[in-house]
Amino acid sequence: MMRKYGVADTTFSRVDMGSIAIKTINKEDSDAEILRYTVPGIKDLPVAAKKLIEEGCNGVITLGWVGKTMLDKYSYLAASIGLITVQILTSTHVIDVTVHEDEADSEEKLKQIAIDRASKHAKNLVLLVKEGKNALTPYAGKGLRQGYNNAGPID
Amino acid sequence: MMRKYGVADTTFSRVDMGSIAIKTINKEDSDAEILRYTVPGIKDLPVAAKKLIEEGCNGVITLGWVGKTMLDKYSYLAASIGLITVQILTSTHVIDVTVHEDEADSEEKLKQIAIDRASKHAKNLVLLVKEGKNALTPYAGKGLRQGYNNAGPID
Amino acid sequence: MMRKYGVADTTFSRVDMGSIAIKTINKEDSDAEILRYTVPGIKDLPVAAKKLIEEGCNGVITLGWVGKTMLDKYSYLAASIGLITVQILTSTHVIDVTVHEDEADSEEKLKQIAIDRASKHAKNLVLLVKEGKNALTPYAGKGLRQGYNNAGPID
Amino acid sequence: MMRKYGVADTTFSRVDMGSIAIKTINKEDSDAEILRYTVPGIKDLPVAAKKLIEEGCNGVITLGWVGKTMLDKYSYLAASIGLITVQILTSTHVIDVTVHEDEADSEEKLKQIAIDRASKHAKNLVLLVKEGKNALTPYAGKGLRQGYNNAGPID
Amino acid sequence: MMRKYGVADTTFSRVDMGSIAIKTINKEDSDAEILRYTVPGIKDLPVAAKKLIEEGCNGVITLGWVGKTMLDKYSYLAASIGLITVQILTSTHVIDVTVHEDEADSEEKLKQIAIDRASKHAKNLVLLVKEGKNALTPYAGKGLRQGYNNAGPID
Repeated sequence: MMRKYGVADTTFSRVDMGSIAIKTINKEDSDAEILRYTVPGIKDLPVAAKKLIEEGCNGVITLGWVGKTMLDKYSYLAASIGLITVQILTSTHVIDVTVHEDEADSEEKLKQIAIDRASKHAKNLVLLVKEGKNALTPYAGKGLRQGYNNAGPID
Repeated sequence: MMRKYGVADTTFSRVDMGSIAIKTINKEDSDAEILRYTVPGIKDLPVAAKKLIEEGCNGVITLGWVGKTMLDKYSYLAASIGLITVQILTSTHVIDVTVHEDEADSEEKLKQIAIDRASKHAKNLVLLVKEGKNALTPYAGKGLRQGYNNAGPID
Repeated sequence: MMRKYGVADTTFSRVDMGSIAIKTINKEDSDAEILRYTVPGIKDLPVAAKKLIEEGCNGVITLGWVGKTMLDKYSYLAASIGLITVQILTSTHVIDVTVHEDEADSEEKLKQIAIDRASKHAKNLVLLVKEGKNALTPYAGKGLRQGYNNAGPID
Repeated sequence: MMRKYGVADTTFSRVDMGSIAIKTINKEDSDAEILRYTVPGIKDLPVAAKKLIEEGCNGVITLGWVGKTMLDKYSYLAASIGLITVQILTSTHVIDVTVHEDEADSEEKLKQIAIDRASKHAKNLVLLVKEGKNALTPYAGKGLRQGYNNAGPID
Repeated sequence: MMRKYGVADTTFSRVDMGSIAIKTINKEDSDAEILRYTVPGIKDLPVAAKKLIEEGCNGVITLGWVGKTMLDKYSYLAASIGLITVQILTSTHVIDVTVHEDEADSEEKLKQIAIDRASKHAKNLVLLVKEGKNALTPYAGKGLRQGYNNAGPID
């Protein structure tokens, strides 16, 4: 059975994480059909995810980019609540990749974070959609990180 | 097919962004029908957007103005959550234009931000309503900004 | 056609804004029927508004009073989200009048703010209920304020 | 007609406010049937209130206790939003009694606040359930406080 | 009658709290059937809980791990609101275990908190699912703590 994935990204982002996610999904799932939805900013992502699910996507990855100010963070909070609401109402995973401009000092480092986070979470999405609720269980409690090196388990 | 757009603005705002949005929509879509809804402040925008969608709008732009205090920011957060909820429940875009009084030192600069942001986001709305989910994809990850100069992509 | 208005107020408030709102509504709309609902505090206002709408109110005004502490502000945020949710679910305006105890140094000034805000917003409610979405459009972008002097438009 | 009241409390609380609420309700309403629901902490109160209402309660009082850290306050915010959502979805009052550990310096004072707040709000609940939306109107704008002395009206 | 429990955990966590919860549930309820769902991080827990309930779970425990930054705390707030929403919509308990990396100075202490909190709350879940709303009433107001020593009741 072909699986349908949604990729929602923004024009606000300074890295084309949507393309990275698409490339990763295609590599991880040879039977993937992918729909892409591009919106202006993070507050537009929840409705994009909702519409992708209504078009039959079995799972969605959203790729957001957030500025440095307190207002940007409030927008992040509102968008996060919205993305969780979409998941609850549709019983479908929407993996939320967010890069914050204050996560790193240099643009180069920001870009590395974005690439690493988008590709690792695209893999997570494929695993959850293809194999279901125990696909990630071997890694439970392992301190995995996206955008950074893994923290690892304690002890 | 004629497309119906909703424009929701406030009496609290110090710039008539509603008129700017209407002018832009008419310029970008010659088949546009536009409904306007004016409310006192940002916390009244979600229900206005909801009602505009119930009257058949295919997409809505809201134009909010936010004061400088912490309480104004909490109101912004509540309104943002509400606008996202409206979108999720109706599967319709509500592009949220907000100008914060502490974004600039001078009134002149504030007004420039308001004009630029309202017109750019009105264009975004028309593109999404007319052409759908891939209309903005050529700009994905391009670091577009509304109210300011574009940040551009990294590299 | 007689119009039905809801007025929801609290025993926490130090000014009887409910009576001010009722007086104003009666003055502005000679065909008004008014239902009043008094609750302990702001977190009880959303359900009061919901119930007033279920009893047939075409619009509701809520009159809240908020203390000075951070906890009071979190309660304000939760109540604001709730009031917006009620509006979204019922497609009915709930105009939210809130006075914060830290808005002014003297009790006299606080009372003036409360009276001005409650009466101005009661007028807004009547206009929206009686005349609909374009009633306030002549004032769009005019920098109107409730509780204070109008800021006015820029330029 | 017998009225059914719900009392939801927590094991986290350091004062048995549930018993105080039950005693007060029985004193204020001789026809009261009372259901009690005890959960670990404040974030479990919304579902307890929802279930009590589903079992036929005409109104619910929840009795929460909140620690001193910022995280405790975020939990308070999430729980408050949840309690308001339950009320909106069921059109039923859920009077929310919360004691914050940083409200007082001594345990004795905290206990006094808890007892005063729980009993006063239990009375409020009975009045709203028995007599409806105008039961508290004589006290509108009177500056009533629970846990502290009344502030009183201005002027 | 066999009872079905859901255990939702994350790969972000640095302690395998899911296994601790499963072990505890099996010890406390010999008729337990347990479904496990592992997701990347806390913002994925609400949909996991929702899906576990849809698969027939009578109650769910979620096991989250939260970083030290303000952004991590906003994610915690969004996830908490989501978990409460799931409970309200399904009328089912989702006991929320969260460990914050800034709760302790050493990894060893963090791990102790995680183990204590996960096992105590797993017991709470079994009690609520097996015996219902009065199972915890003997401990109401007793100042119980998970992850730390009990605070105890005042007086």
